[in-house]
Amino acid sequence: MIRLYHVALSPFCRKVRLTLAEKKLEVELVEERYWEQQPEFLRRNPAGKVPVLKMDGRMMAESQAICEFIDETHPDAPLMPRDAAGRYEVRRLCAWFDDKFNDEVTSKVMGERVWKKVRKEGYPDSRAVKAGLSAIKYHLDYMGWLLEQRRWLAGDVMTLADFAAAAHLSCLDYISDVDWNRSEPVKDWYAKIKSRPAFRSLLADQLPGMPPAPQYAELDF
Amino acid sequence: MIRLYHVALSPFCRKVRLTLAEKKLEVELVEERYWEQQPEFLRRNPAGKVPVLKMDGRMMAESQAICEFIDETHPDAPLMPRDAAGRYEVRRLCAWFDDKFNDEVTSKVMGERVWKKVRKEGYPDSRAVKAGLSAIKYHLDYMGWLLEQRRWLAGDVMTLADFAAAAHLSCLDYISDVDWNRSEPVKDWYAKIKSRPAFRSLLADQLPGMPPAPQYAELDF
Repeated sequence: MIRLYHVALSPFCRKVRLTLAEKKLEVELVEERYWEQQPEFLRRNPAGKVPVLKMDGRMMAESQAICEFIDETHPDAPLMPRDAAGRYEVRRLCAWFDDKFNDEVTSKVMGERVWKKVRKEGYPDSRAVKAGLSAIKYHLDYMGWLLEQRRWLAGDVMTLADFAAAAHLSCLDYISDVDWNRSEPVKDWYAKIKSRPAFRSLLADQLPGMPPAPQYAELDF
Repeated sequence: MIRLYHVALSPFCRKVRLTLAEKKLEVELVEERYWEQQPEFLRRNPAGKVPVLKMDGRMMAESQAICEFIDETHPDAPLMPRDAAGRYEVRRLCAWFDDKFNDEVTSKVMGERVWKKVRKEGYPDSRAVKAGLSAIKYHLDYMGWLLEQRRWLAGDVMTLADFAAAAHLSCLDYISDVDWNRSEPVKDWYAKIKSRPAFRSLLADQLPGMPPAPQYAELDF
Protein backbone atom coordinates (compact mmCIF):
# COMPACT_ATOMS: atom_id res chain seq x y z
CA MET A 1 0.00 0.00 0.00
CA ILE A 2 1.20 3.48 -0.85
CA ARG A 3 0.80 6.03 1.92
CA LEU A 4 1.26 9.78 1.66
CA TYR A 5 1.82 11.93 4.73
CA HIS A 6 0.52 15.29 3.65
CA VAL A 7 -1.51 18.41 4.37
CA ALA A 8 -4.48 19.25 2.18
CA LEU A 9 -3.45 22.66 0.85
CA SER A 10 0.28 22.06 0.32
CA PRO A 11 1.26 22.54 -3.34
CA PHE A 12 4.17 20.12 -2.91
CA CYS A 13 1.87 17.37 -1.60
CA ARG A 14 -0.61 18.15 -4.36
CA LYS A 15 2.04 17.69 -7.04
CA VAL A 16 2.69 14.19 -5.66
CA ARG A 17 -1.06 13.42 -5.38
CA LEU A 18 -1.62 14.47 -9.01
CA THR A 19 1.30 12.31 -10.14
CA LEU A 20 0.04 9.25 -8.25
CA ALA A 21 -3.50 9.73 -9.52
CA GLU A 22 -2.40 10.22 -13.13
CA LYS A 23 -0.52 6.92 -12.85
CA LYS A 24 -3.66 5.32 -11.37
CA LEU A 25 -1.80 4.42 -8.17
CA GLU A 26 -4.04 4.19 -5.12
CA VAL A 27 -2.79 6.04 -2.09
CA GLU A 28 -3.80 6.30 1.54
CA LEU A 29 -3.66 9.94 2.62
CA VAL A 30 -2.54 10.62 6.20
CA GLU A 31 -2.77 14.19 7.43
CA GLU A 32 0.50 15.27 9.01
CA ARG A 33 0.70 18.36 11.18
CA TYR A 34 4.39 18.60 10.33
CA TRP A 35 4.87 22.00 11.96
CA GLU A 36 4.38 20.32 15.33
CA GLN A 37 7.56 18.35 14.58
CA GLN A 38 6.47 15.18 16.36
CA PRO A 39 9.41 12.83 16.98
CA GLU A 40 7.64 10.06 15.08
CA PHE A 41 7.30 12.26 12.02
CA LEU A 42 10.92 13.39 12.21
CA ARG A 43 11.91 9.72 12.17
CA ARG A 44 9.99 9.35 8.92
CA ASN A 45 11.63 12.44 7.42
CA PRO A 46 14.62 14.16 9.01
CA ALA A 47 13.92 17.21 6.83
CA GLY A 48 10.74 17.67 8.91
CA LYS A 49 8.37 18.59 6.11
CA VAL A 50 5.69 17.10 3.88
CA PRO A 51 5.16 15.33 1.55
CA VAL A 52 6.56 12.03 2.76
CA LEU A 53 5.66 9.04 0.63
CA LYS A 54 5.80 5.45 1.81
CA MET A 55 6.12 3.29 -1.28
CA ASP A 56 7.85 0.00 -2.07
CA GLY A 57 9.04 -0.14 1.55
CA ARG A 58 10.81 3.23 1.18
CA MET A 59 10.15 6.47 3.02
CA MET A 60 10.64 9.22 0.47
CA ALA A 61 10.88 12.99 0.82
CA GLU A 62 11.28 15.95 -1.56
CA SER A 63 8.38 16.30 -3.99
CA GLN A 64 10.38 16.65 -7.20
CA ALA A 65 12.56 13.61 -6.45
CA ILE A 66 9.43 11.63 -5.53
CA CYS A 67 7.53 12.59 -8.68
CA GLU A 68 10.43 11.75 -10.99
CA PHE A 69 10.83 8.41 -9.18
CA ILE A 70 7.16 7.58 -9.67
CA ASP A 71 7.34 8.60 -13.33
CA GLU A 72 10.48 6.51 -13.95
CA THR A 73 9.13 3.41 -12.22
CA HIS A 74 5.63 3.69 -13.77
CA PRO A 75 6.32 4.65 -17.38
CA ASP A 76 2.69 4.50 -18.59
CA ALA A 77 1.16 7.96 -19.03
CA PRO A 78 4.65 9.56 -19.00
CA LEU A 79 5.01 12.93 -17.28
CA MET A 80 8.50 13.69 -18.57
CA PRO A 81 9.43 14.12 -22.25
CA ARG A 82 11.77 11.62 -23.89
CA ASP A 83 14.40 14.13 -25.00
CA ALA A 84 16.94 15.82 -22.72
CA ALA A 85 15.95 19.33 -23.83
CA GLY A 86 12.32 18.59 -23.04
CA ARG A 87 13.19 17.20 -19.62
CA TYR A 88 15.33 20.27 -18.95
CA GLU A 89 12.37 22.53 -19.68
CA VAL A 90 10.08 20.53 -17.37
CA ARG A 91 12.63 20.66 -14.52
CA ARG A 92 13.23 24.37 -15.07
CA LEU A 93 9.51 25.09 -14.82
CA CYS A 94 9.00 22.84 -11.79
CA ALA A 95 11.77 24.82 -10.08
CA TRP A 96 10.16 28.06 -11.27
CA PHE A 97 6.90 27.21 -9.51
CA ASP A 98 8.25 25.37 -6.50
CA ASP A 99 10.94 28.00 -5.74
CA LYS A 100 10.13 31.33 -7.33
CA PHE A 101 6.34 31.22 -7.48
CA ASN A 102 6.28 29.66 -4.03
CA ASP A 103 8.52 32.37 -2.54
CA GLU A 104 6.81 35.26 -4.27
CA VAL A 105 3.18 34.16 -4.19
CA THR A 106 2.14 30.93 -2.43
CA SER A 107 4.15 31.32 0.77
CA LYS A 108 2.96 34.93 1.07
CA VAL A 109 -0.73 34.50 0.26
CA MET A 110 -1.36 30.99 1.61
CA GLY A 111 1.19 31.47 4.37
CA GLU A 112 -0.53 34.57 5.73
CA ARG A 113 -4.15 33.77 4.96
CA VAL A 114 -4.29 30.04 5.65
CA TRP A 115 -1.27 28.62 7.46
CA LYS A 116 -1.05 31.27 10.14
CA LYS A 117 -4.68 30.57 11.00
CA VAL A 118 -4.28 26.78 10.96
CA ARG A 119 -1.14 26.94 13.10
CA LYS A 120 -2.58 29.64 15.36
CA GLU A 121 0.35 31.95 14.65
CA GLY A 122 -1.51 35.24 14.74
CA TYR A 123 -3.04 37.58 12.20
CA PRO A 124 -2.15 37.79 8.52
CA ASP A 125 0.44 40.41 7.54
CA SER A 126 -1.52 42.38 4.95
CA ARG A 127 1.66 43.73 3.33
CA ALA A 128 2.87 40.20 2.58
CA VAL A 129 -0.55 39.24 1.17
CA LYS A 130 -0.55 42.36 -0.99
CA ALA A 131 2.96 41.61 -2.30
CA GLY A 132 1.86 38.06 -3.17
CA LEU A 133 -1.28 39.22 -4.95
CA SER A 134 0.78 41.72 -6.90
CA ALA A 135 3.43 39.14 -7.88
CA ILE A 136 0.88 36.59 -9.11
CA LYS A 137 -0.07 38.91 -11.98
CA TYR A 138 3.39 38.70 -13.47
CA HIS A 139 3.41 34.92 -13.10
CA LEU A 140 0.02 34.57 -14.80
CA ASP A 141 1.32 36.75 -17.63
CA TYR A 142 4.43 34.58 -17.95
CA MET A 143 2.26 31.44 -18.06
CA GLY A 144 0.01 33.08 -20.63
CA TRP A 145 3.03 33.90 -22.77
CA LEU A 146 4.22 30.28 -22.60
CA LEU A 147 0.73 28.95 -23.35
CA GLU A 148 0.35 31.12 -26.43
CA GLN A 149 3.23 29.13 -27.92
CA ARG A 150 2.57 25.68 -26.44
CA ARG A 151 -0.41 23.44 -25.66
CA TRP A 152 0.96 22.71 -22.19
CA LEU A 153 3.44 24.68 -20.08
CA ALA A 154 6.60 22.82 -21.09
CA GLY A 155 5.59 21.84 -24.63
CA ASP A 156 2.93 19.97 -26.53
CA VAL A 157 2.32 17.26 -23.95
CA MET A 158 1.22 17.45 -20.34
CA THR A 159 4.12 17.05 -17.91
CA LEU A 160 5.12 17.44 -14.29
CA ALA A 161 5.51 21.16 -15.00
CA ASP A 162 1.74 21.44 -15.45
CA PHE A 163 1.18 19.56 -12.20
CA ALA A 164 3.64 21.81 -10.33
CA ALA A 165 1.87 24.94 -11.59
CA ALA A 166 -1.64 23.57 -11.07
CA ALA A 167 -0.73 22.45 -7.56
CA HIS A 168 0.14 26.03 -6.57
CA LEU A 169 -2.75 27.67 -8.40
CA SER A 170 -5.33 25.22 -7.04
CA CYS A 171 -4.30 26.09 -3.47
CA LEU A 172 -4.72 29.78 -4.20
CA ASP A 173 -8.01 29.09 -5.97
CA TYR A 174 -9.32 27.41 -2.81
CA ILE A 175 -9.31 30.84 -1.19
CA SER A 176 -10.29 32.55 -4.45
CA ASP A 177 -7.01 34.39 -5.02
CA VAL A 178 -6.54 33.73 -8.72
CA ASP A 179 -7.92 36.19 -11.26
CA TRP A 180 -8.86 33.75 -14.03
CA ASN A 181 -9.90 36.61 -16.28
CA ARG A 182 -6.36 37.95 -16.53
CA SER A 183 -5.23 35.48 -19.21
CA GLU A 184 -7.44 33.42 -21.47
CA PRO A 185 -4.75 30.82 -22.30
CA VAL A 186 -4.13 30.28 -18.58
CA LYS A 187 -7.85 29.88 -17.87
CA ASP A 188 -8.22 27.40 -20.74
CA TRP A 189 -5.18 25.47 -19.51
CA TYR A 190 -6.51 25.32 -15.94
CA ALA A 191 -9.97 24.20 -17.15
CA LYS A 192 -8.27 21.40 -19.09
CA ILE A 193 -6.16 20.17 -16.19
CA LYS A 194 -8.91 20.66 -13.60
CA SER A 195 -11.24 18.35 -15.52
CA ARG A 196 -8.81 15.41 -15.43
CA PRO A 197 -9.80 12.50 -13.18
CA ALA A 198 -6.44 12.97 -11.38
CA PHE A 199 -7.70 16.33 -10.07
CA ARG A 200 -10.82 14.97 -8.35
CA SER A 201 -9.26 14.19 -5.00
CA LEU A 202 -7.87 17.74 -4.77
CA LEU A 203 -11.26 19.28 -5.54
CA ALA A 204 -12.79 17.31 -2.64
CA ASP A 205 -10.36 18.78 -0.06
CA GLN A 206 -11.95 20.63 2.85
CA LEU A 207 -10.06 22.55 5.49
CA PRO A 208 -11.92 22.52 8.85
CA GLY A 209 -13.44 25.95 9.52
CA MET A 210 -12.31 27.25 6.13
CA PRO A 211 -14.59 26.03 3.32
CA PRO A 212 -13.43 26.47 -0.28
CA ALA A 213 -14.53 29.40 -2.43
CA PRO A 214 -17.71 28.59 -4.46
CA GLN A 215 -15.91 28.20 -7.82
CA TYR A 216 -13.17 25.98 -6.37
CA ALA A 217 -14.62 22.63 -7.41
CA GLU A 218 -16.58 23.90 -10.43
CA LEU A 219 -15.28 22.75 -13.80
CA ASP A 220 -17.01 25.77 -15.35
CA PHE A 221 -15.50 28.66 -13.42
CA MET B 1 31.40 28.04 -26.83
CA ILE B 2 29.78 27.45 -23.46
CA ARG B 3 29.33 30.55 -21.31
CA LEU B 4 28.30 30.65 -17.67
CA TYR B 5 26.94 33.83 -16.11
CA HIS B 6 27.81 33.39 -12.45
CA VAL B 7 29.17 34.83 -9.22
CA ALA B 8 32.24 33.27 -7.64
CA LEU B 9 30.86 32.20 -4.28
CA SER B 10 27.41 31.00 -5.32
CA PRO B 11 26.90 27.32 -4.46
CA PHE B 12 24.41 26.97 -7.32
CA CYS B 13 26.92 28.29 -9.85
CA ARG B 14 29.61 26.08 -8.32
CA LYS B 15 27.48 22.96 -8.77
CA VAL B 16 27.23 23.79 -12.49
CA ARG B 17 30.97 24.59 -12.74
CA LEU B 18 31.86 21.26 -11.11
CA THR B 19 29.56 19.40 -13.48
CA LEU B 20 30.99 21.10 -16.57
CA ALA B 21 34.57 20.50 -15.39
CA GLU B 22 33.93 16.84 -14.54
CA LYS B 23 32.62 16.40 -18.09
CA LYS B 24 35.73 18.18 -19.42
CA LEU B 25 33.59 20.90 -21.03
CA GLU B 26 35.37 24.23 -21.37
CA VAL B 27 33.41 27.22 -20.20
CA GLU B 28 33.83 30.96 -20.33
CA LEU B 29 32.92 32.44 -16.94
CA VAL B 30 31.21 35.83 -16.96
CA GLU B 31 30.65 37.50 -13.62
CA GLU B 32 27.05 38.64 -13.26
CA ARG B 33 26.04 41.12 -10.58
CA TYR B 34 22.52 39.70 -10.77
CA TRP B 35 21.25 41.64 -7.75
CA GLU B 36 21.53 44.83 -9.81
CA GLN B 37 18.84 43.33 -12.11
CA GLN B 38 20.21 44.85 -15.30
CA PRO B 39 17.62 44.69 -18.11
CA GLU B 40 20.09 42.80 -20.29
CA PHE B 41 20.48 40.12 -17.63
CA LEU B 42 16.73 39.84 -17.10
CA ARG B 43 16.38 39.21 -20.82
CA ARG B 44 18.79 36.28 -20.43
CA ASN B 45 16.91 34.93 -17.42
CA PRO B 46 13.47 36.19 -16.41
CA ALA B 47 13.99 34.53 -13.00
CA GLY B 48 16.70 37.17 -12.40
CA LYS B 49 19.25 34.92 -10.75
CA VAL B 50 22.44 33.01 -11.47
CA PRO B 51 23.59 30.58 -12.79
CA VAL B 52 22.61 31.14 -16.39
CA LEU B 53 24.29 28.83 -18.87
CA LYS B 54 24.58 29.53 -22.58
CA MET B 55 25.07 26.18 -24.29
CA ASP B 56 24.04 24.73 -27.66
CA GLY B 57 22.38 28.06 -28.48
CA ARG B 58 20.15 27.81 -25.40
CA MET B 59 19.98 30.11 -22.40
CA MET B 60 19.41 27.87 -19.41
CA ALA B 61 18.51 28.63 -15.79
CA GLU B 62 17.98 26.58 -12.61
CA SER B 63 21.09 24.74 -11.50
CA GLN B 64 19.55 21.30 -10.98
CA ALA B 65 17.82 21.30 -14.37
CA ILE B 66 21.08 22.49 -15.99
CA CYS B 67 23.22 19.83 -14.31
CA GLU B 68 20.87 16.99 -15.23
CA PHE B 69 20.75 18.29 -18.82
CA ILE B 70 24.57 18.31 -19.02
CA ASP B 71 24.74 14.83 -17.52
CA GLU B 72 22.12 13.45 -19.92
CA THR B 73 23.69 14.98 -23.02
CA HIS B 74 27.28 14.08 -22.01
CA PRO B 75 26.96 10.55 -20.64
CA ASP B 76 30.71 9.97 -20.09
CA ALA B 77 31.69 10.19 -16.42
CA PRO B 78 28.02 9.84 -15.36
CA LEU B 79 26.87 11.88 -12.37
CA MET B 80 23.51 10.12 -11.96
CA PRO B 81 23.06 6.42 -11.12
CA ARG B 82 21.44 4.11 -13.67
CA ASP B 83 18.62 2.91 -11.44
CA ALA B 84 15.54 4.92 -10.49
CA ALA B 85 16.06 4.43 -6.75
CA GLY B 86 19.63 5.71 -7.05
CA ARG B 87 18.51 8.74 -9.03
CA TYR B 88 15.81 9.42 -6.45
CA GLU B 89 18.44 9.49 -3.69
CA VAL B 90 20.66 11.88 -5.66
CA ARG B 91 17.75 14.23 -6.30
CA ARG B 92 16.62 14.05 -2.69
CA LEU B 93 20.09 15.02 -1.48
CA CYS B 94 20.52 17.79 -4.06
CA ALA B 95 17.24 19.25 -2.77
CA TRP B 96 18.45 18.74 0.81
CA PHE B 97 21.53 20.90 0.19
CA ASP B 98 20.06 23.40 -2.25
CA ASP B 99 16.90 24.01 -0.18
CA LYS B 100 17.36 23.01 3.44
CA PHE B 101 21.11 23.47 3.89
CA ASN B 102 20.91 26.67 1.86
CA ASP B 103 18.07 28.09 3.97
CA GLU B 104 19.49 27.03 7.31
CA VAL B 105 23.21 27.58 6.74
CA THR B 106 24.50 29.07 3.49
CA SER B 107 22.04 31.92 3.11
CA LYS B 108 22.53 32.87 6.76
CA VAL B 109 26.33 32.63 7.00
CA MET B 110 27.34 33.63 3.46
CA GLY B 111 24.36 35.96 3.16
CA GLU B 112 25.32 37.96 6.22
CA ARG B 113 29.12 37.71 6.09
CA VAL B 114 29.76 37.96 2.37
CA TRP B 115 26.79 39.03 0.27
CA LYS B 116 25.74 41.94 2.43
CA LYS B 117 29.28 43.31 2.15
CA VAL B 118 29.55 42.74 -1.59
CA ARG B 119 26.14 44.35 -2.21
CA LYS B 120 26.77 47.13 0.31
CA GLU B 121 23.62 46.23 2.23
CA GLY B 122 24.87 47.03 5.72
CA TYR B 123 26.34 45.07 8.60
CA PRO B 124 25.97 41.34 9.21
CA ASP B 125 23.15 40.28 11.53
CA SER B 126 25.10 38.31 14.13
CA ARG B 127 22.00 36.37 15.24
CA ALA B 128 21.53 35.00 11.71
CA VAL B 129 25.23 34.07 11.48
CA LYS B 130 25.03 32.33 14.84
CA ALA B 131 21.93 30.38 13.79
CA GLY B 132 23.70 29.28 10.60
CA LEU B 133 26.83 28.19 12.45
CA SER B 134 24.69 26.25 14.89
CA ALA B 135 22.68 24.52 12.13
CA ILE B 136 25.77 23.45 10.19
CA LYS B 137 26.72 21.07 13.01
CA TYR B 138 23.59 19.01 12.51
CA HIS B 139 24.16 18.92 8.76
CA LEU B 140 27.77 17.77 9.15
CA ASP B 141 26.55 15.04 11.51
CA TYR B 142 23.93 13.94 8.99
CA MET B 143 26.57 13.82 6.24
CA GLY B 144 28.88 11.88 8.57
CA TRP B 145 26.10 9.38 9.23
CA LEU B 146 25.52 8.91 5.50
CA LEU B 147 29.26 8.59 4.80
CA GLU B 148 29.71 5.91 7.42
CA GLN B 149 27.44 3.73 5.29
CA ARG B 150 28.45 4.87 1.81
CA ARG B 151 31.61 5.86 -0.09
CA TRP B 152 29.89 8.94 -1.49
CA LEU B 153 26.84 10.82 -0.25
CA ALA B 154 24.21 9.08 -2.37
CA GLY B 155 25.88 5.67 -2.68
CA ASP B 156 29.06 4.02 -3.84
CA VAL B 157 29.73 6.31 -6.78
CA MET B 158 30.24 10.06 -6.95
CA THR B 159 27.13 11.90 -8.14
CA LEU B 160 25.56 15.33 -8.42
CA ALA B 161 24.66 15.03 -4.73
CA ASP B 162 28.37 15.25 -3.85
CA PHE B 163 28.75 18.29 -6.07
CA ALA B 164 25.72 19.98 -4.50
CA ALA B 165 27.09 19.43 -1.00
CA ALA B 166 30.68 20.35 -1.91
CA ALA B 167 29.47 23.50 -3.64
CA HIS B 168 27.89 24.77 -0.42
CA LEU B 169 30.69 23.65 1.89
CA SER B 170 33.40 25.12 -0.34
CA CYS B 171 31.74 28.55 -0.17
CA LEU B 172 31.64 28.35 3.62
CA ASP B 173 35.23 27.08 3.67
CA TYR B 174 36.33 30.17 1.75
CA ILE B 175 35.52 32.19 4.87
CA SER B 176 36.66 29.36 7.16
CA ASP B 177 33.24 28.50 8.57
CA VAL B 178 33.41 24.71 8.41
CA ASP B 179 34.74 22.75 11.38
CA TRP B 180 36.45 19.89 9.53
CA ASN B 181 37.32 18.22 12.81
CA ARG B 182 33.68 17.55 13.64
CA SER B 183 33.36 14.45 11.45
CA GLU B 184 36.22 12.35 10.08
CA PRO B 185 34.13 10.76 7.28
CA VAL B 186 33.08 14.24 6.11
CA LYS B 187 36.67 15.50 6.17
CA ASP B 188 37.86 12.46 4.20
CA TRP B 189 35.04 12.92 1.71
CA TYR B 190 35.84 16.61 1.23
CA ALA B 191 39.58 15.87 0.81
CA LYS B 192 38.67 13.35 -1.89
CA ILE B 193 36.39 15.68 -3.82
CA LYS B 194 38.60 18.74 -3.32
CA SER B 195 41.54 16.97 -4.96
CA ARG B 196 39.65 16.31 -8.19
CA PRO B 197 40.78 18.30 -11.24
CA ALA B 198 37.17 19.57 -11.53
CA PHE B 199 37.65 21.46 -8.27
CA ARG B 200 40.67 23.51 -9.38
CA SER B 201 38.78 26.43 -10.86
CA LEU B 202 36.80 26.85 -7.62
CA LEU B 203 39.96 26.86 -5.51
CA ALA B 204 41.36 29.69 -7.63
CA ASP B 205 38.38 31.99 -6.93
CA GLN B 206 39.19 35.32 -5.31
CA LEU B 207 36.66 37.84 -4.08
CA PRO B 208 37.98 41.43 -4.35
CA GLY B 209 38.79 42.76 -0.87
CA MET B 210 37.98 39.40 0.73
CA PRO B 211 40.82 36.89 0.28
CA PRO B 212 40.12 33.23 1.06
CA ALA B 213 41.04 31.67 4.41
CA PRO B 214 44.54 30.11 4.37
CA GLN B 215 43.36 26.49 4.23
CA TYR B 216 40.85 27.15 1.45
CA ALA B 217 42.97 25.99 -1.48
CA GLU B 218 45.11 23.50 0.49
CA LEU B 219 44.51 19.86 -0.32
CA ASP B 220 45.93 19.00 3.10
CA PHE B 221 43.68 20.99 5.42
